Amino acid sequence: MKVLLTNDDGINAAGLHALWERVREIAEVTIVAPATEQSAVGHAITLSSPLRVEEVKRDGDIYGYAVTGTPADCVKFAVSTFLKVAPDIVLSGINLGPNTGTNVIYSGTVSAATEGTILGIPSIAISLTTFVDPHFDYAAKLACKLVSAVHEHGLPDSTLLNVNVPNVMEEEIAGIRITRQGKSKFKEFFDKRIDPKGGTYYWLAGNMVEANESEDCDYTATKNNFVSITPLHYDMTNAGAIEEIRSWKLKK
Amino acid sequence: MKVLLTNDDGINAAGLHALWERVREIAEVTIVAPATEQSAVGHAITLSSPLRVEEVKRDGDIYGYAVTGTPADCVKFAVSTFLKVAPDIVLSGINLGPNTGTNVIYSGTVSAATEGTILGIPSIAISLTTFVDPHFDYAAKLACKLVSAVHEHGLPDSTLLNVNVPNVMEEEIAGIRITRQGKSKFKEFFDKRIDPKGGTYYWLAGNMVEANESEDCDYTATKNNFVSITPLHYDMTNAGAIEEIRSWKLKK
Repeated sequence: MKVLLTNDDGINAAGLHALWERVREIAEVTIVAPATEQSAVGHAITLSSPLRVEEVKRDGDIYGYAVTGTPADCVKFAVSTFLKVAPDIVLSGINLGPNTGTNVIYSGTVSAATEGTILGIPSIAISLTTFVDPHFDYAAKLACKLVSAVHEHGLPDSTLLNVNVPNVMEEEIAGIRITRQGKSKFKEFFDKRIDPKGGTYYWLAGNMVEANESEDCDYTATKNNFVSITPLHYDMTNAGAIEEIRSWKLKK
Repeated sequence: MKVLLTNDDGINAAGLHALWERVREIAEVTIVAPATEQSAVGHAITLSSPLRVEEVKRDGDIYGYAVTGTPADCVKFAVSTFLKVAPDIVLSGINLGPNTGTNVIYSGTVSAATEGTILGIPSIAISLTTFVDPHFDYAAKLACKLVSAVHEHGLPDSTLLNVNVPNVMEEEIAGIRITRQGKSKFKEFFDKRIDPKGGTYYWLAGNMVEANESEDCDYTATKNNFVSITPLHYDMTNAGAIEEIRSWKLKK
């Protein structure tokens, strides 16, 4: 089994290393990851500049390949051009911070798995719901289990798994819930500041989570110490709204 | 009626100007748009650097405000901080190039309208399905009609309109279709090149459309000279896949 590992925190991230250590026990792993941190890049791809690739070594051995682009770029490039044989699974993570609720659409971690899915490869995004004091052990172990399960069962057409793991010890994990993407979001504001020359600038701040969602949603599951696994697709059609808009009887 | 105008081609784009000229006949318009081109940025937001805002004048009058960020940044910033009164409608475009099928997820134009929707404001993204010789006239006129229709009817909860207009004369437009996001995508490859110092770089190339979709899908509609209007939401859950993944009976 061949696994392509990537992330959005960049090739030097500890979460990527934690995955690499575990997953290479069960698969042939290639890392193709962004050279620098790419958080909240959404599903960006690089059109206006070229990509460069650099081999990255650890302890004298090849660890992976750093690409000067976004997570989606890495997967597109690795699958279409760089790897001689397409991977069986794309695994993206372990991200620092939750990718639940509305945050899913800003997520570079999820975008890498989405790109894998578009290219026809079963893909998994995995995140730890903390920005500080991460415990990657259980999440990395779970990732291996999910890679095996996906390899065994396959995934429904055009569908990826978005996995969020609470940052607690394994014995405190309450179980696994297959969830929906909920409506939780960060409460944000722009901090207005003055630079040394007297100019005004604004910085996006705030990350308190606001949630108003049912028990079967992603954020609520992780808040209750469940692992949340959400099957996502990239069809954003609100099918339920089609008839309503048709009833407007718009003329050209 | 107050309309916030934005785009992803940047504040100097002709498509934005075409909208501005028309829409200000029916609404009070404020432009808050990226200072530079932001194509294919997906739903990126800027976390690691500050935003700056600059007033842009045309013929001595204020034309709009240029923000050093992405389309989603512009809408977040305008609605939460910059505008004293929230707009009634966010209008994003007119984009050069189609935002149909899989391309929707890479689209900065759509992400601006998505961000407006997240913030509770009815939002519309509008694109012209060409990169060359654009005729903005009909699309701008249609945008006014849609702004009025959305103001009158409102939009279903958490739903935006993704509008794609064929680049033909008004009399050649076959009509309006309310569509689904299809599976059309660009056929892409990475062009491998050598720089003057002998280093290798790669550039994403190719934009021939590959489509395999039914008549009620976005790309097929525009190919047949229909305006395509797709109601989109940002819930990416593949609800139909939940039971299948549950049947795996994953244990923690």
